[in-house]
Amino acid sequence: MIKLLIDCDTGVDDSIALLFALHRKDVEVMGISTSIGNVTAAQAADNTMRVLKLAGKEGQVPVCVGAEKPMVGTCEDFPDFIHGKNGLGEIELPESSQKPVDMDVCDFLYEKACEADGEAVLVTLGRMTNIAHTLQKYPDFPAKIKRVVSMGGTVNGPGNVAPMVEANIGGDPEAADLVLMAPWQVTMVGLDVTLKTVMHMEDVKMARGYCREECRPVLDFMMQELQHYMKGARMQNWMRECCPLHDPLAMIVAVDPSVVLTQKRITRVETGGTYCRGMFVTDLREQPIEGRFVEHCMQVDERKALNELFAVFN
Amino acid sequence: MIKLLIDCDTGVDDSIALLFALHRKDVEVMGISTSIGNVTAAQAADNTMRVLKLAGKEGQVPVCVGAEKPMVGTCEDFPDFIHGKNGLGEIELPESSQKPVDMDVCDFLYEKACEADGEAVLVTLGRMTNIAHTLQKYPDFPAKIKRVVSMGGTVNGPGNVAPMVEANIGGDPEAADLVLMAPWQVTMVGLDVTLKTVMHMEDVKMARGYCREECRPVLDFMMQELQHYMKGARMQNWMRECCPLHDPLAMIVAVDPSVVLTQKRITRVETGGTYCRGMFVTDLREQPIEGRFVEHCMQVDERKALNELFAVFN
Amino acid sequence: MIKLLIDCDTGVDDSIALLFALHRKDVEVMGISTSIGNVTAAQAADNTMRVLKLAGKEGQVPVCVGAEKPMVGTCEDFPDFIHGKNGLGEIELPESSQKPVDMDVCDFLYEKACEADGEAVLVTLGRMTNIAHTLQKYPDFPAKIKRVVSMGGTVNGPGNVAPMVEANIGGDPEAADLVLMAPWQVTMVGLDVTLKTVMHMEDVKMARGYCREECRPVLDFMMQELQHYMKGARMQNWMRECCPLHDPLAMIVAVDPSVVLTQKRITRVETGGTYCRGMFVTDLREQPIEGRFVEHCMQVDERKALNELFAVFN
Amino acid sequence: MIKLLIDCDTGVDDSIALLFALHRKDVEVMGISTSIGNVTAAQAADNTMRVLKLAGKEGQVPVCVGAEKPMVGTCEDFPDFIHGKNGLGEIELPESSQKPVDMDVCDFLYEKACEADGEAVLVTLGRMTNIAHTLQKYPDFPAKIKRVVSMGGTVNGPGNVAPMVEANIGGDPEAADLVLMAPWQVTMVGLDVTLKTVMHMEDVKMARGYCREECRPVLDFMMQELQHYMKGARMQNWMRECCPLHDPLAMIVAVDPSVVLTQKRITRVETGGTYCRGMFVTDLREQPIEGRFVEHCMQVDERKALNELFAVFN
Repeated sequence: MIKLLIDCDTGVDDSIALLFALHRKDVEVMGISTSIGNVTAAQAADNTMRVLKLAGKEGQVPVCVGAEKPMVGTCEDFPDFIHGKNGLGEIELPESSQKPVDMDVCDFLYEKACEADGEAVLVTLGRMTNIAHTLQKYPDFPAKIKRVVSMGGTVNGPGNVAPMVEANIGGDPEAADLVLMAPWQVTMVGLDVTLKTVMHMEDVKMARGYCREECRPVLDFMMQELQHYMKGARMQNWMRECCPLHDPLAMIVAVDPSVVLTQKRITRVETGGTYCRGMFVTDLREQPIEGRFVEHCMQVDERKALNELFAVFN
Repeated sequence: MIKLLIDCDTGVDDSIALLFALHRKDVEVMGISTSIGNVTAAQAADNTMRVLKLAGKEGQVPVCVGAEKPMVGTCEDFPDFIHGKNGLGEIELPESSQKPVDMDVCDFLYEKACEADGEAVLVTLGRMTNIAHTLQKYPDFPAKIKRVVSMGGTVNGPGNVAPMVEANIGGDPEAADLVLMAPWQVTMVGLDVTLKTVMHMEDVKMARGYCREECRPVLDFMMQELQHYMKGARMQNWMRECCPLHDPLAMIVAVDPSVVLTQKRITRVETGGTYCRGMFVTDLREQPIEGRFVEHCMQVDERKALNELFAVFN
Repeated sequence: MIKLLIDCDTGVDDSIALLFALHRKDVEVMGISTSIGNVTAAQAADNTMRVLKLAGKEGQVPVCVGAEKPMVGTCEDFPDFIHGKNGLGEIELPESSQKPVDMDVCDFLYEKACEADGEAVLVTLGRMTNIAHTLQKYPDFPAKIKRVVSMGGTVNGPGNVAPMVEANIGGDPEAADLVLMAPWQVTMVGLDVTLKTVMHMEDVKMARGYCREECRPVLDFMMQELQHYMKGARMQNWMRECCPLHDPLAMIVAVDPSVVLTQKRITRVETGGTYCRGMFVTDLREQPIEGRFVEHCMQVDERKALNELFAVFN
Repeated sequence: MIKLLIDCDTGVDDSIALLFALHRKDVEVMGISTSIGNVTAAQAADNTMRVLKLAGKEGQVPVCVGAEKPMVGTCEDFPDFIHGKNGLGEIELPESSQKPVDMDVCDFLYEKACEADGEAVLVTLGRMTNIAHTLQKYPDFPAKIKRVVSMGGTVNGPGNVAPMVEANIGGDPEAADLVLMAPWQVTMVGLDVTLKTVMHMEDVKMARGYCREECRPVLDFMMQELQHYMKGARMQNWMRECCPLHDPLAMIVAVDPSVVLTQKRITRVETGGTYCRGMFVTDLREQPIEGRFVEHCMQVDERKALNELFAVFN
């Protein structure tokens, strides 16, 4: 059984990643924390609990509201044209009766990690603000975590909020640098691979056609929220009736790392500059800078990743 | 006949690039300007004139001393461990009786370009300081130049003065940005290809063995200065009895562009940041930043490039 | 703003290339000249003006009728099975009230180039007859043009009118050789890349589904004319419900050269032989023939090219 | 036992190919015919018999003098700078007491083929003149031959006597077309692979160091003649202390076809044109010209080929 501790900012692709994890038979989601990003942390928690209800897990997974602003500065506008005002593509999922746990997010994450006895994989789908705060409060947090898998960044590919900067890292560069420098193994699932993993509406339709009866409402919801999301992908990435698989691919890598080829590179996060704030600085020189080896996903088996995603609903 | 206007900071690999150009039968070197970099601009000019003498062209190619400091800030230490204190691997070439022309480097470059009637290819082997100053003084300089071929920068590869920064661009980022934004066609021959074009001492020995009688002293000199340079490459790049071909490859591309595969990318130079000052920011996003398309060399035919280099001494 | 001067023989794929250019916000089409090829030059002009009307630009872009025969010989039959008798897949677009300008095509092209003050990119989608004539009448034409991007030829791929000959070059080899030998920078977008950029009817359908309201008639027209064209592609290329993207890819490269990897090769056009009349002769030998370096597209990012095409209707 | 019937124009690389075949334990050379090419046919026969003597096979393999001119036109100058005046790099091998057989070369080849009972592999290392004549005299010659392996031509690579033309095909295009159109299986070992199979003088030195005692004189001879040949390769291909492996690679492919990757393409030989006389016209179109499938070598395992060559002297 794979124990997951998830930190997210539940927008459209986060919700799909969550639904995938919640339906995997070999996965136990131990807890979910939220931060500002696609929406506010509070909204993200609300979205998360509605998704839990949709998955038939209402009240079974604790949800904790985290940071409402990055470590430095304040927050820019939300990307409504991609995730919709409510973060779920303007689709109203039934409200959940679950309430967020009333805890500081650092205590929540640390406690959950201890509970799992070092066996939990930490998956981050948004900015790394909550994780950075937890590292500051509990310097031994890394010892309580098995490994970290994070959606974010890019090595050789184009960015999405600046020429070479991805939104999760660019949204809180100081937090990201802190997390990458902590003594644990971090696998970055960045735009190099997520932009190459393209899901078509047709894929979702097909999955809906043959899924298990009880998963029908889940696939219905996915089809609906993806209408909005794919329109955003059309505006941003010029994709047609399809979208890149950001957060879901990170979740897939967390449970099956074999879908990607990775390279470990000494990595820091640039926090200054005109174009480069939030960019990964990877150093392949013979005498590199001080830094830790971060594992970056360089290639992906697109077909296998997509198959893996929909297989949980078979 | 290919007319070349060369700007350099004559160190070891600059000298080899110059000797290649000076021995190509289809090349006419119209003038050489120097700037600070591997050595001072004055030393670079002195080295250049010694190299001209070695090539039997004493007094035949005008040399002009240019900028002794970058556009912003002052100059760090010289890379003696690579180029030697004198820039030529500590080898004392016989002094030349030629004197540098007594002109402002901007006037020199502009005048030479006009003389060539728009047919001159501008080759830069060092920082772009002189070119940037000329652009500021003569805004129509680009119209007088056929195209620009520059050694410098890196797109996907490792840098050499910072994780992702190459020395020529990192040595004067403001100048480089100015040059890349000017309305001419710039081809960057960066570390992506120069680090993949490796010359062995054995290559030079063989070339010396069968070269034309009158080229013997040239090959002798190259073997001597490369002793020092290859030691530097061993220290910096961990190479053994060999070295990357930086400036010579740029010169080869200037006369035979077929040795590389290129891609045009909208490009700016980052001038700030902790790690990224002097880095190329290339934007492959669907909606890129403002910038000009710069041609970057992405792949090289290593064998052909090396063959081309030594062929001029056959 | 990218200023384009377009020479074409408006058939089906030319019309799509034109519609793409006319809808790009960063493109200004300064003028369009036509020549014999897919249809007569007169018919091509008529088609062009109907396309302009469809794009809501009736009377806003001057159209000039050019050569009705190649430099040498006369014209073979038109490829009706690909472009239809009228060149637009037998679809009758509403007639335009615009009239072609009453000028010699050489004067037209030269004048327009001068008007753009050297900033116009010349895009050729058909035979190069008009351009060759203009070069003969105005030897300084190249100095008035920024660069040339041409659909035509092939380097390593199969041809389409002879084993290694593409129709635009094979249709007037003498003109092509003259254009390639002129002192400007020519980028050839040939079958090596256009046959690798495949558009499916499904792509057009999807684009029609979500395009801006005012673009609906444009996508309707494209779907209709492509019925005929894709049938031709089935006959000629054995493709199923899809077709190669010839002229549109050239237009895309003209506005975004980053979608291709290129190589410069010394190039001539063979004008004799049993099989080779109209073939590109590229010389990679160490001691090549006299010729100019022409930039050939060797690889293409198919996905990005298609996305870029349909994005203008979003 | 592999039975070989060899047609050659014994220059330096032919002699190495012959020495390889003559030392292979699983090869029986049934007869050797010569034609004009590197030297006259008569000189080639004389060279061949000296090589036979060097290999300890004096008088054991019949040699027949063939065509002294191509099917059309006369012969240009011999490439002395590559093969030397005598064809063997100016090295005087001891004269042989063997005499050429007194037969028409067509009768010789046909008779030998019949003798081998359809089991002979025909290897051609020069122009195909003799083979073409034999085909004309004995239309059923193909039925008597197992398969044909020929050094010659190029598909994607540069040529050596014209931009895209190799010397053996360019030296008698009409003969080559006749041979390629005959009903047998032809494997072309062309410049695409021979230029990528590079032998260094160091390789020969090493082989000489550890070869069987009785092979020492053979390796001595190879080292001597290669001095001249590699100088030629330096002039023509800018190679240093090395040379491409033309004829030897064809011989290696004849006995071990696994060293190459091949592609069958419908092929004709262009006999006209300004640049293309002697060029392979391969047709990958869906509806190709009339022609036969010829097998072209596209990639080679360079290391294995070189190992195979020297292994016969172990």
